[in-house]
Amino acid sequence: MVISAGFREVGAEGLKLENQLVANCGKYGMRMIGPNCFGIVNTDPEYSLNCTFGKTRALQGRVGFISQSGALGEAIMNQAHVLGLGFSMVASIGNKADVSANDILEFWKDDPNTDIVLLYLENFGNPRRFTKIAREISLTKPIVAVKAGRTTQGAAAGSSHTGALAELDVGVDALFDQCGVLRVSSVEELFDVGAALSKQPIPKGNRVAIVSNAGGPALLATDALVSLGMDVAPYAGQTKARLKRTLSGQGNVNNPLDLVAGAGGEHFRKALKVVKNDPNFDSIVTIFVPPVTINQMDVAQSILDGVKGTNKMILACFMGAGEGSAAVDYLKQSGIPVYIFPEAIAKALSLIDSYRRWLQRPRTKFKTFSVNKKRVQEIIDTAIGSRCTALVGEAALAVLDAYGIPVARCRIAYSEKEAVAAADKIGYPVVVKVNSPEILHKTESGAVLVDLRTAKEVKGAFANLKKKVIKIPRKKDRFSVMVQEMVTGGIETVMGMTTDPSFGPLIMFGLGGIYVEILKDVAFRINPLTVYNVEEMIGNLKSFPLLTGFRGTEPVDMPTLKESLLRLSQLVADFDQLSEIDINPFIAQSEKGKSKAVDARIIMHHPTGNRR
Amino acid sequence: MVISAGFREVGAEGLKLENQLVANCGKYGMRMIGPNCFGIVNTDPEYSLNCTFGKTRALQGRVGFISQSGALGEAIMNQAHVLGLGFSMVASIGNKADVSANDILEFWKDDPNTDIVLLYLENFGNPRRFTKIAREISLTKPIVAVKAGRTTQGAAAGSSHTGALAELDVGVDALFDQCGVLRVSSVEELFDVGAALSKQPIPKGNRVAIVSNAGGPALLATDALVSLGMDVAPYAGQTKARLKRTLSGQGNVNNPLDLVAGAGGEHFRKALKVVKNDPNFDSIVTIFVPPVTINQMDVAQSILDGVKGTNKMILACFMGAGEGSAAVDYLKQSGIPVYIFPEAIAKALSLIDSYRRWLQRPRTKFKTFSVNKKRVQEIIDTAIGSRCTALVGEAALAVLDAYGIPVARCRIAYSEKEAVAAADKIGYPVVVKVNSPEILHKTESGAVLVDLRTAKEVKGAFANLKKKVIKIPRKKDRFSVMVQEMVTGGIETVMGMTTDPSFGPLIMFGLGGIYVEILKDVAFRINPLTVYNVEEMIGNLKSFPLLTGFRGTEPVDMPTLKESLLRLSQLVADFDQLSEIDINPFIAQSEKGKSKAVDARIIMHHPTGNRR
Repeated sequence: MVISAGFREVGAEGLKLENQLVANCGKYGMRMIGPNCFGIVNTDPEYSLNCTFGKTRALQGRVGFISQSGALGEAIMNQAHVLGLGFSMVASIGNKADVSANDILEFWKDDPNTDIVLLYLENFGNPRRFTKIAREISLTKPIVAVKAGRTTQGAAAGSSHTGALAELDVGVDALFDQCGVLRVSSVEELFDVGAALSKQPIPKGNRVAIVSNAGGPALLATDALVSLGMDVAPYAGQTKARLKRTLSGQGNVNNPLDLVAGAGGEHFRKALKVVKNDPNFDSIVTIFVPPVTINQMDVAQSILDGVKGTNKMILACFMGAGEGSAAVDYLKQSGIPVYIFPEAIAKALSLIDSYRRWLQRPRTKFKTFSVNKKRVQEIIDTAIGSRCTALVGEAALAVLDAYGIPVARCRIAYSEKEAVAAADKIGYPVVVKVNSPEILHKTESGAVLVDLRTAKEVKGAFANLKKKVIKIPRKKDRFSVMVQEMVTGGIETVMGMTTDPSFGPLIMFGLGGIYVEILKDVAFRINPLTVYNVEEMIGNLKSFPLLTGFRGTEPVDMPTLKESLLRLSQLVADFDQLSEIDINPFIAQSEKGKSKAVDARIIMHHPTGNRR
Repeated sequence: MVISAGFREVGAEGLKLENQLVANCGKYGMRMIGPNCFGIVNTDPEYSLNCTFGKTRALQGRVGFISQSGALGEAIMNQAHVLGLGFSMVASIGNKADVSANDILEFWKDDPNTDIVLLYLENFGNPRRFTKIAREISLTKPIVAVKAGRTTQGAAAGSSHTGALAELDVGVDALFDQCGVLRVSSVEELFDVGAALSKQPIPKGNRVAIVSNAGGPALLATDALVSLGMDVAPYAGQTKARLKRTLSGQGNVNNPLDLVAGAGGEHFRKALKVVKNDPNFDSIVTIFVPPVTINQMDVAQSILDGVKGTNKMILACFMGAGEGSAAVDYLKQSGIPVYIFPEAIAKALSLIDSYRRWLQRPRTKFKTFSVNKKRVQEIIDTAIGSRCTALVGEAALAVLDAYGIPVARCRIAYSEKEAVAAADKIGYPVVVKVNSPEILHKTESGAVLVDLRTAKEVKGAFANLKKKVIKIPRKKDRFSVMVQEMVTGGIETVMGMTTDPSFGPLIMFGLGGIYVEILKDVAFRINPLTVYNVEEMIGNLKSFPLLTGFRGTEPVDMPTLKESLLRLSQLVADFDQLSEIDINPFIAQSEKGKSKAVDARIIMHHPTGNRR
């Protein structure tokens, strides 16, 4: 356990020292945590180990916590103490010269003392290993993470701070989503969720009952819950009648339940005894604003009595109870997390609900299709042979075609005659484009002519384009055009792949044009994709309703769209050389067999190394 | 000051008692606060008044606080005490039988002891008066508000809780935006912003310097600030060199500044003395995570020394300092708000920045145009005379036309001959629609024929539509069609008006089709609109880039679009009878004089009362 700094983080000289340190440890069969860290804690009474330089003693509990920041380790130990959150182990991993976060995660997978994992991360050492481990752990133990560097400026600051390459934040989101890791955006939320998970069962659904002695805070809780996708549902069957009977003198009984002014412990106990048995709810939020006339401790005890025996999640809000409230401490010690503000409860519940939904996801398989891998290898080899790293037009479409992604038929023509022959073969109307990798953004430079309906028009188009292109300097190849089937109607979508320095390939999908460029309504997932991933990518787009038929239009052929994404995923998995793919547009049509990729661009890693 | 409950909030009997109470007060020339409230506090030493039943003593300060919830009043007093937030006055207004929030606001406008106003509201008694007062106060004293009932479920709970009608939440947003009221979504944020505003000057811009002894929290602060629109800007000119010189041994010096491990007070003092003079920043966030080896009080004192004399806003984060830290208390007492987590600072700064931008808005006038008010009055009178409350087609367009909103030319025709004559007059191509208020959603029922290029086609269209409509039962009027100029190309926009029960008319603008229906990318403002309101409504849409020319298309004729909205605003202001207007589509074209409303629908309040 090396706490000292002055290693890798200070530069080349430090890195040398760090490598020596690791080598020395290895020589004697030792493992090392650090250097440049805050230390580790193990609260298991059998070890009762505190190797940190902090002054706060960790409470024993069932939370494992890893921090990539030493300073945060200290702050978090302190804050956890205030909140009454107990740890099984705490580890600040520093430079991760030997033991990494992944190593610790792997250990916790089977650690009987650890039920929940909290993480503060600045970057991923080995995200593919993280993915594998996190996916397994999440099935039985929730993982909640703060990942710093969400914004470009934050990521830049992080890089200069840790010396690591910045990951794409969409990649982090995709990674966490695919592994069932709950991403929170602050340490405060990390605690709020951690406290609920460590002391209460995971609710079976998103329906919340609110029992409060104050209308205002109950309203705020309702607003916060509903705006985060939770359901402040109505009471089932007899609940209303039972509440009216048990709370004599109470006017309205609705969820949220606003107990009469001056409600004390007795009211909470009675109300909770009824509400806890209502099958319409999966969790109960009790809100108490302590008036001067009411004994807080009595209310705390009544809440405990009232909810006894339920398997619903119970969270409490004691708003304005003041610092060091004995009632709040008592509830915490009795297993009910207490929050100062209702919004924190809403955030925690909605995150935990997303974990429940993750657990309930169908575990679909990775599908593979019969494809022409050899053909793609040939195209790539030919390109690399001629020192070409970008495939466009016909070649790019041929790659997709070999993997069974439907593409608009096309042919290259070097003369007017060939162009007409191609058009005759393809069938009118056709589109004629300049066939040149140098003119990538074709439409804007006017190098595309559409809706050509006769041989004469195709001839004219060839001549016309040739004249234009001759004006473009440094054109060395012989002039040619691509004659392509004209695809009309349908909905423009965009499929693609981008490579993240740490996560590897990410598959992208969105609707074309404004939806991608202005509204950024796109979905990313880390390759490979399961059937479920693809369904989610498509279904979670804000513009999704456009695909299912909007204002009386026909829905698009969804099976072809999904299969095309899965085939793209397979292509990306099969060829490490591919660094970027942009299929734009892929026109989705309602008629079966008509959806097609119209244009594509494939960028390969430079063949002479630098393959990230 | 009547604290007792049992009045209006319990029903008719209570309302009677409340009215008697008010009448009795009036008889003796008294004003009354309450009933059913938490009480009032005035910390001015000359009065030193505490008329609440809470046990917490309010600290003296410059914040005026109004709570519509008595329970929240108690919670807030308590929490404010913990945070060291001082009040000039606190008022829980309860049922507002006599004195309202507006009355208190009006008093604070000129109250020398109150510099900031915090509000917790559940509904508006008289939103038009609130608007007027809030607009005036905001010019010199910031107003920060939590308005419960953001969500439909929250609003419903609020209605049952207060007995008031729910306002449209878009109306609340518009109201606050137009009055410069900062809307926060939780009481916690209310405090966070209140603390910053009450102790520190308003920054002149959005550029933030971060000085931290810990990398992780500095990263989190950067993420939070940037994602909320703040700028963690680079250092100006000599700052880097000066920092390197003054902090010998420090490696990287960048914003966020991560002081060397083990940095103590001396480092903070030196760094802040340099950073506070950097003209690139408007505010400074200092973050301190207390390691066991460093004296917290020394750091607190050094921060105070370091920032002395600056007019930048200074906020501090002491993460994990623990409860009751003397250093934190000392900083708070010395005028520097201290937060536990950096995200709270980011939220507060970004809200305060939106207030600065509001203060800097151009104070544009309400424009009025020369219009044909008489013509509109005639149309309305005719409609009401025939007990018709919805104007569609020609009549609705005629109303817009009378107010100078450009509309597609149209004529009604009762025969094939008249239809052809109309088309000849308008000019081909034309559109022919069934002219019937009963068939409102025309396109979907196939009652529109477009792009008719000859007299023959128009004739055919008339016959064709007549045949269709005869099948629709209960058609009593003589069959007629509307022949309309065909508007092609351009961008579909939607303009409209809806009436909120409390705020009155709201004007709406958005792009048509999917942008309104699926992406909800629309803007609302409370009528009347200033020129600035209109610019903001258009400019803040996510789909705004479509109007300014996207992918090489021409920008639309913006002056006509803006003027049309202002003319709509004038129409709405002139005629109380109008309850809803839906101009859909208003086609925006790039060519001057071509943008036009193609269809409209105007709903009037029912003439026999019930005019909300």
